Amino acid sequence: SRSINLAVIPGDGIGQEVVAEGLKVLSAVLPQDVKLETKEYDFGATRYHATGETLTDGDLDELKRHDAILLGAIGDPSVPSGVLERGFLLKLRFAFDHHVNLRPSKLLPGVATPLAGQPEIDFVVVREGTEGPYTGNGGTIRKGTEHEVATEVSVNTAFGVERVVRDAFARAQARPRKKLTLVHKNNVLTFAGHLWTNIFNKVAEEFPEVTTDYIHVDAATIYLVTDPARFDVIVTDNLFGDIITDLAAAVSGGIGVAASGNINPSGDYPSMFEPVHGSAPDIAGQGKADPSATVLSVALLLRHLGHESEAARIEDAVSADLADRGGLPARSTSEIGDALAARVAG
Amino acid sequence: SRSINLAVIPGDGIGQEVVAEGLKVLSAVLPQDVKLETKEYDFGATRYHATGETLTDGDLDELKRHDAILLGAIGDPSVPSGVLERGFLLKLRFAFDHHVNLRPSKLLPGVATPLAGQPEIDFVVVREGTEGPYTGNGGTIRKGTEHEVATEVSVNTAFGVERVVRDAFARAQARPRKKLTLVHKNNVLTFAGHLWTNIFNKVAEEFPEVTTDYIHVDAATIYLVTDPARFDVIVTDNLFGDIITDLAAAVSGGIGVAASGNINPSGDYPSMFEPVHGSAPDIAGQGKADPSATVLSVALLLRHLGHESEAARIEDAVSADLADRGGLPARSTSEIGDALAARVAG
Ligand SMILES: CC(C)[C@H](C(=O)O)[C@@H](O)C(=O)O
Ligand SMILES: CC(C)[C@H](C(=O)O)[C@@H](O)C(=O)O
Repeated sequence: SRSINLAVIPGDGIGQEVVAEGLKVLSAVLPQDVKLETKEYDFGATRYHATGETLTDGDLDELKRHDAILLGAIGDPSVPSGVLERGFLLKLRFAFDHHVNLRPSKLLPGVATPLAGQPEIDFVVVREGTEGPYTGNGGTIRKGTEHEVATEVSVNTAFGVERVVRDAFARAQARPRKKLTLVHKNNVLTFAGHLWTNIFNKVAEEFPEVTTDYIHVDAATIYLVTDPARFDVIVTDNLFGDIITDLAAAVSGGIGVAASGNINPSGDYPSMFEPVHGSAPDIAGQGKADPSATVLSVALLLRHLGHESEAARIEDAVSADLADRGGLPARSTSEIGDALAARVAG
Repeated sequence: SRSINLAVIPGDGIGQEVVAEGLKVLSAVLPQDVKLETKEYDFGATRYHATGETLTDGDLDELKRHDAILLGAIGDPSVPSGVLERGFLLKLRFAFDHHVNLRPSKLLPGVATPLAGQPEIDFVVVREGTEGPYTGNGGTIRKGTEHEVATEVSVNTAFGVERVVRDAFARAQARPRKKLTLVHKNNVLTFAGHLWTNIFNKVAEEFPEVTTDYIHVDAATIYLVTDPARFDVIVTDNLFGDIITDLAAAVSGGIGVAASGNINPSGDYPSMFEPVHGSAPDIAGQGKADPSATVLSVALLLRHLGHESEAARIEDAVSADLADRGGLPARSTSEIGDALAARVAG
């Protein structure tokens, strides 16, 4: 489309700084005839402390009117653990049915990895985003007593699993290696595990060109450090996806370059794009944060909205910048943003 | 005690081979006056195919009479996923209330790691073994239809969490660094997360010398590859413990050397010791398996039964053998066992 109506949520901590650079690069990459409108929202710790609110129905109505959402980071030590996560981040993912949580991992040339021998890493995790142990089902009885019982219920539906598995197969089909790995723990979580495995095997029949594989989540963490090249596309449950994508980010250049999209492929609601890193309050406001993860999230956003060539230009710019980095003096958040903006414009 | 009455379960795949070496080293290390009696049980895929049984009440009664159990590995591709895991391994852990699942990770000198720069790794994970998502709670409705719903319920009790947290604090207290890290996901799994966090903080008051720390499970996977030296003792839930101990094994020398104990500290039931690796059917029967993980599990077994000096002798022998390994020709399972037996005897 020739206009982008973007909701911008800088959020907490380094969120402010990295989003500013993401927008800088976005403006620089867009052709003249694409009109960019942005509206900023103040969600996060500040709003919570001022009003006690995290995300109201009115907020959701407003956000819904945008084509997409760019988020920096939400979370601050001044807010009890869980309040902003459940009250904002997860509430938004669930309200807008962001069932495809897309997290690419690519070790770019010249980028440091904690792994020996600089292995080839280029895979994408399709993490389910609206089910599993993230539903908030469960509860507590006899709280605070020696007889307390707390439960967490992982909810998995054929509807929810099939749509994300199908999305992952389509993504695998579109990639050169055409390989899809299901990651679960179906030998222990047998109820959910059988549902995932059966649907995976059923949908596989529609994609005869895609090679399939199954790995338990515990073993997957081993392969991510000993043989990450074996992965092309991974599809997995919400919690397993949360865990393995942090590890995936760590081995493929760190969370400074890990982008993600919370996607609703139907387009019924705007999709949301955010760096995998959090608000990092310890380095906030110091210009130390690497904006690359946010800039790469902007690329995912553009691809989602159909601006493929602009997305590719951003990815190339980040790749080139990272390749140069060893030779460049240490730069601030905005210096990196400026450099990337110059590259995509140029 | 001056006698050890041991139940031996070689199990499937490489289980047979590695247990033979574990017993060889056990016999070699024990002083003359300690009487070792072993009884072998045929649990696993063979028994399942022959009888349809995995572990009966009668079996449990028999196993209960032993001082401890040494297990090789259970699992075979000929048995549907979940049958032996839930029907044998987990059934035994639950029946014998093995609530402390102990998994030490130590990168020994000369041992290869996938991590660059050979970091210092020496920590132990205390994984809860009888609760969490492993309880088998949950179910399926409308199975096989497009309206299927499958649930998995993580069950967490104050009783269950407190005893394992207390055990972990005691272990941390006994180590030079005296540091304990709680790993959970209390910002999302808020019911279970609050229970774990509150009990952790409460028990911490009884151990003022122990430094405490909290990390989300996703972030823990990052630290395990970027800064494993930060960990001393980790306490965590059954599923998180499953996942991070495979990763911990991978970074600290691989599952060829990862030992574990399924411990019931009360002594009401025998504890069970097993290598973290599985049955590895692809290399079974070829003499290729490294028995070191089983031998180190024998050391944990001896320590549990009060034979500390013998346990230490085994650990030193494995350490010395691994340090030599680069210089040694490739050896078979039994050659490694022979070498270790010679070292502990000598
Ligand atoms: C902050 C938290 C709710 C979130 C999650 O668990 O999904 C984060 O870890 C992520 O991966 O985006
Ligand atoms: C085989 C399986 C049931 C088991 C577990 O999940 O506990 C294994 O992965 C382990 O870690 O001992």
